[in-house]
Amino acid sequence: MTDYRTLRVALLGAGAVGSQVAGLLLRHGDELADRAGARLELAGIAVRTIDAPRDVELPAELFTTDAEALIVGADIVIELMGGIEPARTSMLQALASGADVVTANKALLATHGPEIFDAADQVGASVYYEAAAAGAIPIIRPLRDSLAGDRVRRIMGIVNGTTNYILDRMDTEGAAFADVLSQAQALGFAEADPTADVEGYDAAQKAALLASLAFHTAVPLDAVHREGITGVDAAMIESARHAGYVIKLLAVCERIEDAAAGQQADAISVRVYPALVPRSHPLASVHGANNAVFVEAEAAGSLMFYGAGAGGVQTASAVLGDVVSAARRHIAGGVGVGESTRANLPILPIGRVTTRYQITLEVDDHAGVLATVAGILTEGRVSIATVEQTVLTEEEQGAPVARLVIGTHKALEQDLSDTVARLASSGVVERVVSVLRVEGD
Amino acid sequence: MTDYRTLRVALLGAGAVGSQVAGLLLRHGDELADRAGARLELAGIAVRTIDAPRDVELPAELFTTDAEALIVGADIVIELMGGIEPARTSMLQALASGADVVTANKALLATHGPEIFDAADQVGASVYYEAAAAGAIPIIRPLRDSLAGDRVRRIMGIVNGTTNYILDRMDTEGAAFADVLSQAQALGFAEADPTADVEGYDAAQKAALLASLAFHTAVPLDAVHREGITGVDAAMIESARHAGYVIKLLAVCERIEDAAAGQQADAISVRVYPALVPRSHPLASVHGANNAVFVEAEAAGSLMFYGAGAGGVQTASAVLGDVVSAARRHIAGGVGVGESTRANLPILPIGRVTTRYQITLEVDDHAGVLATVAGILTEGRVSIATVEQTVLTEEEQGAPVARLVIGTHKALEQDLSDTVARLASSGVVERVVSVLRVEGD
Repeated sequence: MTDYRTLRVALLGAGAVGSQVAGLLLRHGDELADRAGARLELAGIAVRTIDAPRDVELPAELFTTDAEALIVGADIVIELMGGIEPARTSMLQALASGADVVTANKALLATHGPEIFDAADQVGASVYYEAAAAGAIPIIRPLRDSLAGDRVRRIMGIVNGTTNYILDRMDTEGAAFADVLSQAQALGFAEADPTADVEGYDAAQKAALLASLAFHTAVPLDAVHREGITGVDAAMIESARHAGYVIKLLAVCERIEDAAAGQQADAISVRVYPALVPRSHPLASVHGANNAVFVEAEAAGSLMFYGAGAGGVQTASAVLGDVVSAARRHIAGGVGVGESTRANLPILPIGRVTTRYQITLEVDDHAGVLATVAGILTEGRVSIATVEQTVLTEEEQGAPVARLVIGTHKALEQDLSDTVARLASSGVVERVVSVLRVEGD
Repeated sequence: MTDYRTLRVALLGAGAVGSQVAGLLLRHGDELADRAGARLELAGIAVRTIDAPRDVELPAELFTTDAEALIVGADIVIELMGGIEPARTSMLQALASGADVVTANKALLATHGPEIFDAADQVGASVYYEAAAAGAIPIIRPLRDSLAGDRVRRIMGIVNGTTNYILDRMDTEGAAFADVLSQAQALGFAEADPTADVEGYDAAQKAALLASLAFHTAVPLDAVHREGITGVDAAMIESARHAGYVIKLLAVCERIEDAAAGQQADAISVRVYPALVPRSHPLASVHGANNAVFVEAEAAGSLMFYGAGAGGVQTASAVLGDVVSAARRHIAGGVGVGESTRANLPILPIGRVTTRYQITLEVDDHAGVLATVAGILTEGRVSIATVEQTVLTEEEQGAPVARLVIGTHKALEQDLSDTVARLASSGVVERVVSVLRVEGD
């Protein structure tokens, strides 16, 4: 075995991902040393509870509850504690000591990214976070490096496995949201508290990271428009299928000419919501808990990255790739390459975004209603592309009700929401059943 | 504009890719400087003929025929001349002077890779070649970096756009190979001399690069088994469709336990051939001239990378990403990270590979023939999974002929080819119509 220099690796956290990282580091040590050009010595694993049950059997002597002491003297610190604190404090301590940091902590990077990247720049260290955006799918390096000479126009990502699993089962089985969610919880595909997933918080964090990289602009989490999937019901999915669409929770990062402001300067929009995707689009075929990121770039054209978006051992693969990169940089010398955020593009609020929409209404079924509805849309600068009218069974009161499914041309979100409000209070609309954006066509 | 350090970039070659690279470098100079942290000054473009027609209009004063003089003093040299010489000499000159090299030259890397990477290591320079493997698709960094902590089990790649275009049109239109090829040539999807594409040479070069990265082993081009698609006819495609398959030219890079040698040490196999892919496999949906690389790794599971495999501006995107990476490294300092080839796994000859096969035979249609054929297969250690027999129209001589389509279980290539030879000379087999490997199921 070659006589490699030894690098000390400190692991913070031994949950689903951390325990797999430790196991692989110990099991494939020689192989990783050959690839990194350095021996990676697992100096210790900091945890809250020493004797908690772990997914992987690990030597007891590696465990400590003293993260602070473990970080001292480490060359590479792997932060897999999750959450904001104490992860933030530990990461800043590690960077201040000159260690490179590898993390999968999207919540921390999406909320305290600039502070952390600045801390790294101060000492010439690097922060690696391939595992933070789409689990095992290599998407950070492609955006940061491979596409660094191109101009990304648009990213559409299925970046949350839990919601894709739920929507996919609702689509294939016609099942109700609540039923699929509780089954997903039983199978371990969804957390006991599913809020972060089903309300789109997790996807919004990933969207912020992807948009920052793609547009070379710091994107704070609160600039990401976020809607979850709790409002998606079986009828919406059935209606989407009827129209040739599937409903997916999408993270959309878009570079747009700020036409609404009448100027030519580019701006960006970052948003997460359930959207109608044409069944012929590659993203429509992403099933189960898988993730995929579809990228449109000016020169490269359309690219897609597909794989497992979560899972302990899958995410561990991405973490270990970063550890090898960090080790190679240590051996090569030089300072870390900081984040590229100098483009500093303005971020548009959701109201300034244009997309196509599908509006489903229940209206009184009598002559002139369609004309009234069409008039309100036209007045609101929402142009109609398609209309489908279905007469529903009569309601108890005896007034006949029809369902209108209206597909629009591209419209400004602000115009659209104003128009929908006017429709709702128009007197002819009984109920606004749903308003969904259409993406990818 | 920030006061960046200036890096001198020398471009060698101004063909379909080179002219786009120059155009983008000039057009997006400020943007690229912000991303790279350095101003990228296009010092000149070395070409054979100054006034040849170009795809992009470029300042005449940039052109020179003196590549050697242009390289002197360059920080980054972009080699897009193609071919072995003078590309090799120029690249070695650039590396000797300490410049980083960016190239899309798969032929050169697949044949002289070790010499070039050694030259880079000597001076601590780097060679970047994201554009060499699948055009605009980021696959080099994912394999070299993102998956560096994992163990790649298998790569199946559609890495040649021309052959995928031809096979796809044969599949969707039932057209003949020669007809589609001449149309592809007329449309610019195939070269006037299509040998490099249709005989699999281009795919084999890319397979060597991908396998080297995936298995951390230098893979010489002559260790890649190569078969082209000129033998694929409309009948084979129709028969594949009937059995639920599509024929794709695949680059397969596989890590295997060397069971044939009775030992447990891993080995690898790298091969290019037309194969039957189940229609449900993600690679089956890769249409037209697109490329896709499907990767199976021990921890990460299945990943797929999809996009444009060729094209001037698409490939230029990958080249410019590398230029930005090279610039960042110059600014960060430190030496270049060399190729990781220390695993040095043995490369198996094709005879030692096991796959499934589909054998199509024309046999005499009389009692006992199937038993004879089955006996020869069993004797040859080829186990039958499925058989389909169709009686063909009688031949002129009056002897009835049947077609047998035999799907096998996994068998050793050597056993299979010996067995097919025995079938051919058995007296009951009129004609071996085709023998195809089945991949991806």
